[in-house]
Amino acid sequence: MERAIAYAREHRASFLEELQEWLAIPSVSTLPEHGRDCERAAGWLADRMRRAGLQRAEVVPSRQQHPLVYGEWLGAPGAPTVLVYGHYDVQPADPLELWETPPFQPTVRGDNLYARGASDDKGHVFATLKALESLLATDGLPVNVKVLVEGEEESSGAEIARYVPRHRRRLRADCALVMDSGFVAPGVPSITVGLRGILYTEVEVRGPATDLHSGTFGGAAPNPFHEAIRLLASLRDRRGRIRIPGFYRPVREPSEAERAAWRELPVGEEEFARSIGARGTVGEEGYSLLERLWARPTLEVHGIAGGFTGPGAKTVLPARCVAKVSMRLVPDQNPDRVYRAFERYLLRNVHPAYEVMVRKLHTGRPWMVSPEEPAVQAAARAWSAAYGAPARFVRMGGSVPVVDLFSRVLGQPVVVTGFGLPDDNLHAPNEKVNLPLLWGGVEAVIRFLHEVRALR
Amino acid sequence: MERAIAYAREHRASFLEELQEWLAIPSVSTLPEHGRDCERAAGWLADRMRRAGLQRAEVVPSRQQHPLVYGEWLGAPGAPTVLVYGHYDVQPADPLELWETPPFQPTVRGDNLYARGASDDKGHVFATLKALESLLATDGLPVNVKVLVEGEEESSGAEIARYVPRHRRRLRADCALVMDSGFVAPGVPSITVGLRGILYTEVEVRGPATDLHSGTFGGAAPNPFHEAIRLLASLRDRRGRIRIPGFYRPVREPSEAERAAWRELPVGEEEFARSIGARGTVGEEGYSLLERLWARPTLEVHGIAGGFTGPGAKTVLPARCVAKVSMRLVPDQNPDRVYRAFERYLLRNVHPAYEVMVRKLHTGRPWMVSPEEPAVQAAARAWSAAYGAPARFVRMGGSVPVVDLFSRVLGQPVVVTGFGLPDDNLHAPNEKVNLPLLWGGVEAVIRFLHEVRALR
Repeated sequence: MERAIAYAREHRASFLEELQEWLAIPSVSTLPEHGRDCERAAGWLADRMRRAGLQRAEVVPSRQQHPLVYGEWLGAPGAPTVLVYGHYDVQPADPLELWETPPFQPTVRGDNLYARGASDDKGHVFATLKALESLLATDGLPVNVKVLVEGEEESSGAEIARYVPRHRRRLRADCALVMDSGFVAPGVPSITVGLRGILYTEVEVRGPATDLHSGTFGGAAPNPFHEAIRLLASLRDRRGRIRIPGFYRPVREPSEAERAAWRELPVGEEEFARSIGARGTVGEEGYSLLERLWARPTLEVHGIAGGFTGPGAKTVLPARCVAKVSMRLVPDQNPDRVYRAFERYLLRNVHPAYEVMVRKLHTGRPWMVSPEEPAVQAAARAWSAAYGAPARFVRMGGSVPVVDLFSRVLGQPVVVTGFGLPDDNLHAPNEKVNLPLLWGGVEAVIRFLHEVRALR
Repeated sequence: MERAIAYAREHRASFLEELQEWLAIPSVSTLPEHGRDCERAAGWLADRMRRAGLQRAEVVPSRQQHPLVYGEWLGAPGAPTVLVYGHYDVQPADPLELWETPPFQPTVRGDNLYARGASDDKGHVFATLKALESLLATDGLPVNVKVLVEGEEESSGAEIARYVPRHRRRLRADCALVMDSGFVAPGVPSITVGLRGILYTEVEVRGPATDLHSGTFGGAAPNPFHEAIRLLASLRDRRGRIRIPGFYRPVREPSEAERAAWRELPVGEEEFARSIGARGTVGEEGYSLLERLWARPTLEVHGIAGGFTGPGAKTVLPARCVAKVSMRLVPDQNPDRVYRAFERYLLRNVHPAYEVMVRKLHTGRPWMVSPEEPAVQAAARAWSAAYGAPARFVRMGGSVPVVDLFSRVLGQPVVVTGFGLPDDNLHAPNEKVNLPLLWGGVEAVIRFLHEVRALR
């Protein structure tokens, strides 16, 4: 193990160059015009897996969208098997004008590497790949490893959701390592034991058949923006609670032990507001910051298309508008049941002069694992040793739908971790990864693979 | 007069070709990329004014934006003078995909000519021009005529607002004829004696310094869309009344006579909803359809920029969003006072985690004239004769800021009329003008110029 760690340290300069090469490929999965780039990013990865010494590494073509990449090394019969997961697709980069350096021209400034996908999630996939290469180039792998990397994490996740149930045998493993998470705060390596789910929808409100002049028709003609605004505003009460009937009924409150552990974490309300450059925080009354971020469901509006938003003035009553609305869900909320309740609420409350339609774009179930789980404990030891600080058990506000898939469909204990930082600007301009944490990640994965030898 | 009317009838085919040529110039005043097109449209008009026989016709260069066009024929000393107004600029044409034929490729289908600006307002300017040409080519003009056509009616109106006060003498006239209005219903020629004013604003709400991931940060980070939605929804109560303090205080109720006349007009609530293809109507409780459209102020949201509105899903909490919000105002509301009250309301009610900023894009005062005014009576006679049906006195929900300018600054009685129809799709896809009404308009202007001979 020490030789593998030494190998990784010696090769940092060339590793960095390689990673920059990968990050330069704009594998934006939600934008059709980047379909080819997603294929290129997948091909690049399969090629590097082969060079790293995996026995098998292939691009698995997708029926509809972006391919998966699958690799394996099964040369340790009798030893446990670890299924490693990450994703090579990235979020759209707009608004481009807010990036200090172009999103697909990876740039090192200080300790950080700036690029779309640097942290979410190419950096994590890359660190894992380099841990495997470092082991295979020195002492060999102590366990069997299967690697599955998807290209639709930021969009539908459809391909992996089809693939996993059909390849249960191929993906059989003693545990899964999902590298798509991070530190709860600088200096605090973290193992994620809970994730929020998601329900992403579009809400379309229709009024008149065509756009109308707001002078001639205003005062009597329906304006879909008004109804969208009224309906969306009505979804939240004064205390910040969501008013969809039954929404909170299945919500499981965190245990007193978990709450107490969260109170120890160096994360405060004012510091949080400062870190995001806001005047203050918002959210549900009666819950602490971490409870609101990790253990409480949310409802967010991401944008409203329609009408006129260009420079200057246009006095239009638009025929329709479409709001992007998502909900983050917590155990034991069920995304499909929430969707039905949401749709019912809107259909029942819409003014008769309007038509409202709801579309479900994607869902992911919330997830939790016990910190006592041996694989989770192994990760905690590996991360503590690699970063020289005790790892904490935390939750994450984001959604990693594949975790639920591995957990429910494959029946594996799942370890969710990584080395992202809260200020990595995921899904935002100037995304970056902290390079010392990235190198620590290579070492942490090497240590983890040694720790899990004892799983069987 | 009869010879002029005969001339106009004989030349309809060539008139139509000419109008199509003018409509093909995309003189969209709000979009900087169409600056040159506005100049071309202005040049085209000045040229045609000269060919029509005006003594003077010139493009008046603008300091900042789009030029005015001024023309005159002052060959009837001792006779009254009429100032004619229209505008050559047009609304943006988007959404383009909803047009049946391209907006700047004027197309005749049945009795209608489809193009952006066909009705609002190039069709009206053109009919007036052809009335002058028909008179000058036959019996001559019975009165003096000054023609002022602007290129910023759909944007700021800044140029004409600067020009009129500085050219009081040049623009001196016995009355003004504003050709930018229409029939209240098919078969009902109408003279507009009241217009709503306008206050057009942008409301910007800021939250975090950059866009954030809605999973990681949702539940505690401010989302500007929520605050914009909450603030905008709060502006209207359950009865459809606007909740800006003092908003309704200066509102003048229509006289009982005016209300009674409106009740005679063939405009019903259900028919109105059908005509705009909506399931029903909306608006302030306790007021009739025409009261809501003509005599009551409104507040409309035209669009909200920011966040993600592309295809697919992006889980972003945007740093900011900007809503376009306008208010239609009625006598005796003052746009600047309403603006201050609106800004105060938002600043006082914004949640402390957000910053709200309001910008005033443009304003126009509401206006009214007495139906007993001789020039108004002259127009009613001309329109009744040209269309073979008694003209009615109506109001209009739209805003024609120049009417207030002529009325207040030049001190002229203003006649606001035209031949638009309620379904002309002003400011919307598939704008059109009804050709029989356009030809009637040429005749109506010829008759009006004869009627006003007696003004002095």
